[in-house]
Amino acid sequence: MKEVRIGLIGTGYIGRAHAIAYAQAPTVFPLKGRLVKAMVAEISPELAARRAQEFGFLRSTGDWRELVADPDIDVVDICSPNFLHKEMAMAAIRHGKHVYAEKPLALNAADARDMVDAAHLAGVKTLMGFNYMKNPTAKLAKEIIAHGEIGEVTHFYGTHNEDYLADPSTPADWHCFNETAGLGALGDLGAHIVNMAQYLVGDIASVCGDLQTVIPQRPSRAGASTQVRVENEDQVHAMVRFANGAHGVIETSRVACGRKMGLTYVVTGTKGALSFTQERMAELKLYRQDDPANRQGFRTLLTGPLHPDYAAFCASAGHGIGFNDQKTVEVRDLVDGIAADLPLWPDFEEGWKVSRILDAIVLSHQVSRWVEVS
Amino acid sequence: MKEVRIGLIGTGYIGRAHAIAYAQAPTVFPLKGRLVKAMVAEISPELAARRAQEFGFLRSTGDWRELVADPDIDVVDICSPNFLHKEMAMAAIRHGKHVYAEKPLALNAADARDMVDAAHLAGVKTLMGFNYMKNPTAKLAKEIIAHGEIGEVTHFYGTHNEDYLADPSTPADWHCFNETAGLGALGDLGAHIVNMAQYLVGDIASVCGDLQTVIPQRPSRAGASTQVRVENEDQVHAMVRFANGAHGVIETSRVACGRKMGLTYVVTGTKGALSFTQERMAELKLYRQDDPANRQGFRTLLTGPLHPDYAAFCASAGHGIGFNDQKTVEVRDLVDGIAADLPLWPDFEEGWKVSRILDAIVLSHQVSRWVEVS
Amino acid sequence: MKEVRIGLIGTGYIGRAHAIAYAQAPTVFPLKGRLVKAMVAEISPELAARRAQEFGFLRSTGDWRELVADPDIDVVDICSPNFLHKEMAMAAIRHGKHVYAEKPLALNAADARDMVDAAHLAGVKTLMGFNYMKNPTAKLAKEIIAHGEIGEVTHFYGTHNEDYLADPSTPADWHCFNETAGLGALGDLGAHIVNMAQYLVGDIASVCGDLQTVIPQRPSRAGASTQVRVENEDQVHAMVRFANGAHGVIETSRVACGRKMGLTYVVTGTKGALSFTQERMAELKLYRQDDPANRQGFRTLLTGPLHPDYAAFCASAGHGIGFNDQKTVEVRDLVDGIAADLPLWPDFEEGWKVSRILDAIVLSHQVSRWVEVS
Amino acid sequence: MKEVRIGLIGTGYIGRAHAIAYAQAPTVFPLKGRLVKAMVAEISPELAARRAQEFGFLRSTGDWRELVADPDIDVVDICSPNFLHKEMAMAAIRHGKHVYAEKPLALNAADARDMVDAAHLAGVKTLMGFNYMKNPTAKLAKEIIAHGEIGEVTHFYGTHNEDYLADPSTPADWHCFNETAGLGALGDLGAHIVNMAQYLVGDIASVCGDLQTVIPQRPSRAGASTQVRVENEDQVHAMVRFANGAHGVIETSRVACGRKMGLTYVVTGTKGALSFTQERMAELKLYRQDDPANRQGFRTLLTGPLHPDYAAFCASAGHGIGFNDQKTVEVRDLVDGIAADLPLWPDFEEGWKVSRILDAIVLSHQVSRWVEVS
Repeated sequence: MKEVRIGLIGTGYIGRAHAIAYAQAPTVFPLKGRLVKAMVAEISPELAARRAQEFGFLRSTGDWRELVADPDIDVVDICSPNFLHKEMAMAAIRHGKHVYAEKPLALNAADARDMVDAAHLAGVKTLMGFNYMKNPTAKLAKEIIAHGEIGEVTHFYGTHNEDYLADPSTPADWHCFNETAGLGALGDLGAHIVNMAQYLVGDIASVCGDLQTVIPQRPSRAGASTQVRVENEDQVHAMVRFANGAHGVIETSRVACGRKMGLTYVVTGTKGALSFTQERMAELKLYRQDDPANRQGFRTLLTGPLHPDYAAFCASAGHGIGFNDQKTVEVRDLVDGIAADLPLWPDFEEGWKVSRILDAIVLSHQVSRWVEVS
Repeated sequence: MKEVRIGLIGTGYIGRAHAIAYAQAPTVFPLKGRLVKAMVAEISPELAARRAQEFGFLRSTGDWRELVADPDIDVVDICSPNFLHKEMAMAAIRHGKHVYAEKPLALNAADARDMVDAAHLAGVKTLMGFNYMKNPTAKLAKEIIAHGEIGEVTHFYGTHNEDYLADPSTPADWHCFNETAGLGALGDLGAHIVNMAQYLVGDIASVCGDLQTVIPQRPSRAGASTQVRVENEDQVHAMVRFANGAHGVIETSRVACGRKMGLTYVVTGTKGALSFTQERMAELKLYRQDDPANRQGFRTLLTGPLHPDYAAFCASAGHGIGFNDQKTVEVRDLVDGIAADLPLWPDFEEGWKVSRILDAIVLSHQVSRWVEVS
Repeated sequence: MKEVRIGLIGTGYIGRAHAIAYAQAPTVFPLKGRLVKAMVAEISPELAARRAQEFGFLRSTGDWRELVADPDIDVVDICSPNFLHKEMAMAAIRHGKHVYAEKPLALNAADARDMVDAAHLAGVKTLMGFNYMKNPTAKLAKEIIAHGEIGEVTHFYGTHNEDYLADPSTPADWHCFNETAGLGALGDLGAHIVNMAQYLVGDIASVCGDLQTVIPQRPSRAGASTQVRVENEDQVHAMVRFANGAHGVIETSRVACGRKMGLTYVVTGTKGALSFTQERMAELKLYRQDDPANRQGFRTLLTGPLHPDYAAFCASAGHGIGFNDQKTVEVRDLVDGIAADLPLWPDFEEGWKVSRILDAIVLSHQVSRWVEVS
Repeated sequence: MKEVRIGLIGTGYIGRAHAIAYAQAPTVFPLKGRLVKAMVAEISPELAARRAQEFGFLRSTGDWRELVADPDIDVVDICSPNFLHKEMAMAAIRHGKHVYAEKPLALNAADARDMVDAAHLAGVKTLMGFNYMKNPTAKLAKEIIAHGEIGEVTHFYGTHNEDYLADPSTPADWHCFNETAGLGALGDLGAHIVNMAQYLVGDIASVCGDLQTVIPQRPSRAGASTQVRVENEDQVHAMVRFANGAHGVIETSRVACGRKMGLTYVVTGTKGALSFTQERMAELKLYRQDDPANRQGFRTLLTGPLHPDYAAFCASAGHGIGFNDQKTVEVRDLVDGIAADLPLWPDFEEGWKVSRILDAIVLSHQVSRWVEVS
């Protein structure tokens, strides 16, 4: 069985989720390749070594450049802050590695495009960490739409709202600055819901958005009296038009008081509708106009073994999969794709498309009018 | 006790709701005036007479001009199709009647302004039928916001989506034509959510909207093979900016498959949030950031006698009031306002403000950019 | 059109709901008789006169005996405390009046039986105020069950839980004493859910219950330091077996902290299930096993004009009816039944059946074992 | 670091969940011991070998007796059908192994008692697979109750209902026979909710239950025309009284059409209430009577890093953990308990207590009256 040797860069919030997924994927799924947790890179050799031990990786390094150059690595997995994505990915690609990167792909669409082109040229595979589309509900929604069960899509409303910066006394961190994060809520959260919109409905053709930095100053660090300026946006909404004629609205916020995991969507079609919130990640609500007139209503589908990818986790419906399990599906896609030379999706091309849409939203805000995505 | 003699024009869908409200209001509330169900006008004397009998009105007429001129009428209640609102209201005002009118006030803001000016000049009172703000939940939401319980409002998301025209085989009726309805979903449903936004958050200063006629042709009547063109919009969304700095999104649709009474709002503030859907009209969800960190969550307030206007209907919480009960609160406001010479709200001025916003949304769509409301 | 002249005894909590129903019923429904709000009886002539005026009744009296004897009364409507039901009903029946009485019919089943027998003998019609079964959801549930849409019923779980006495500092009132109330939670609330169980599933054949007085002492009145003994039960649950073989559980409590209107039921059948809570009185959830295996789920039916009795209130689905509207349906049944000589249901016979079941539950508790209802 | 070497017997439905937990636990938690996936036993050497490879275990055997006797095993993990639990556990204990067993502990309480006594005598640790109490919501509920936040518990309503045998054409399997399963729904599902009741409220002192085999005959295998008799119960409800004076009801069913993961509880106290359903496993609803009177309501606590055990899975609230993650918490308890010599809970003593209660419920059904648990 072909080995797929992973080099993980970054072990913070999302790096940890990747590590959990690597740990359980071979037990959950009959992978097409042998997953090897090869090397961890962190900002110091000590931290890298500690994480390698915690996460069950064979080796570690305090220098990510060493990792991307290592001949015994097949995939470079980039879980670092946004501003490092491009440099790391380009280096990995130069060394002929496949690249698995967290969103947003880069600080802007132009950088993202460079990465796509480099990967194409080098013939390496790429995968984006858009994990919410790996929830069985998303593939189920896609299947329902594709089968025409809700007719033609006429409207999309999607959000990714959280409240991790809702408290004005929360200090500014790297998310708040252009140099380190690029976009604010749009890049961190909005990328997910834009990706979901594209996945479920199709390509977004034009946008018109509104951005706002709700809390323009924050303490420089916890408890500090010094305030620093927040450089990017806290909340955004945008009207969108899809290439297929559907219209919609996308919202994202990191100051949405009370919302913990507010990735939601309502997809309305000519014969039905779908409704979803990630806070109830096991439930997809489906309305069918062809139910008898006096028996119509949104029905709550609880994901189960008859739905995509669920059975690998549990043989009973409604028992529930969690956040990290989505990453496990993603890792399954990664390993299978590389071992069996299958296409990976969402790839960097899709990451670039999302970046391009985010950039268009920003531009539309600056010029106060609609902007074509192309 | 001063009499408040009602002349009701129109006994269709919403006229019937008014009649039910007139029937129960004196029993539900200790009104400040004696409500007299004086006269009904309909398109024929026969229909008018039948409705007068059904609704318990004293007299009837097949000519609304007779009603507005009748000296024994104090209030003219206009429940006719949109295109007749202006003519009827102007005539009533000329005869010195107070006017109670359904939304939208007129086919456009200019007409609405004429009506406001005429009423001011004549010194008559006016009231709009924005009944959803008479739901105890709305006044409770207003009170929570006014008390600062959710801090300063930073975001508003509101919808009024229904699916009464979602089926393409539903024939075109007066709602679908400019001459009879003016706007489509915006005027019929959007007016409600714009009013709610203004009520809860404050004046809307600028807008940028997108309109779409999803089903451009419909049968001319049930089962007909002849198709006619739908002249106004089926679905709309608009980004809005409030004068106080909050931003938001408003959606409205009459083709929102599956939504029966989709007036909803999420009001987010710096210290909390509110969430509501009229399909669960007894529930207001409240999130408070000052709850202990590990005990935070949206709590479901079930309206009860400790909340505005509820106790008159029932002495126990959670027992529920219905759609017509909202109209009953409206009628209470009407009768008390006229009998005791109190201000009425929402008045024609508010109706005009709403119309002005709707018109601005249309204009912003036409010019593909933001438009100031003023 | 035949007149149906109402004499209302008692104008407290539930009497007021009756009055609101009388006020709106003729406008809401095309009644088969002319409803006349003839006379009100209260504990003093002054209170009676005031209520007659508020409720729009023609006459009033401080002596209910005068009302039941009045020749211009057709129906005696009993909204007094439980302990007076029997005496008033027997007197009304003696005078040949039809009787409409609130639940529980009497303090015990033996008294209830006397009332049934007297009414049969006198040939008068009777109606019980089991208003929750007049919610369109209940008739819809019945219809779904009757059509076999959920197969044969195999299980029933029903509750009527509220928290009006959950606070130990709430003083004892007439509900708490044997002489005035008879049973506690069982009589006040349990009667409703027992009636609903019988309506939806069929006759209950045997029971085994457990009663508990959770708060055995209460202040004699608000703020009093004197404590009095609570003589009847605060919370009850009972296992039940229906004549048709289904099994189930019934719960009732007046100290169910947090529950405002906790009349709920889950009816499970061999091919589906129904689920309902009165706190969301517009929603009935339906599960159908014959939906495609990967599209199964509870669907939320929002009551609308295609469901029983709803259209009279509103022509649009999901707009909602309220607590008093249920009483309005009940009043429609009353007036039509008397004017057109139709059977009324639930009648005193059903009230007696419910009483008999409640008594059996008490007995089963006393003897710590199952008891046959007969 | 001390090794904790696992020998897993049985790799079906629940054995697989154990394997996933073993795979991810060392990455999720900083375990106090080094978890070694040592050996798998299955019914044939081939199957055992295949599973060992899938699950990442070092060795395998077709004979569980070999596993329990193996000197390089510290813990025997029993995931076999119910009827084998006792024999396997007794053998493991004889060899001085710690034992981790799935519920129900044994076919009856007497057998369970033998196992408890043997473990005590041998001085080995034991752990039961009551995984639902490892959901952070359960520990949070326990904490809320222990802190007196809902006052004294007055009522418990709990269910574990599923529908895996709701379809009469589903063939009988080992769950349906006394020899292989012992009890039916009670043993398979009821054990969980009885355990939860004991965990949240305290020891159950007496019970009175009702059992029913709803579908008495089933096909002998898929599609077979031969019917075999189902020997144990499909649905059960029982009234229970806790030692501390609270009363309650417990329900369990394997034919509850529409319920996929119906482990639910409502715990009512003198000052508040808790409500939970495992189908929304991330949500615990809390009602507090000491909230201001007009701001009371059930609030939805979404589990997050401030709640027990959640932070190890994800640093953000509301992102969700799944079914297998509960097992991962259980495995953490197991490994830490054995490596650091800490008490394990729920242990076999608790498993026996649960069995004793289940047996008492059966007995109460047979004698049609209340039965003391002791």
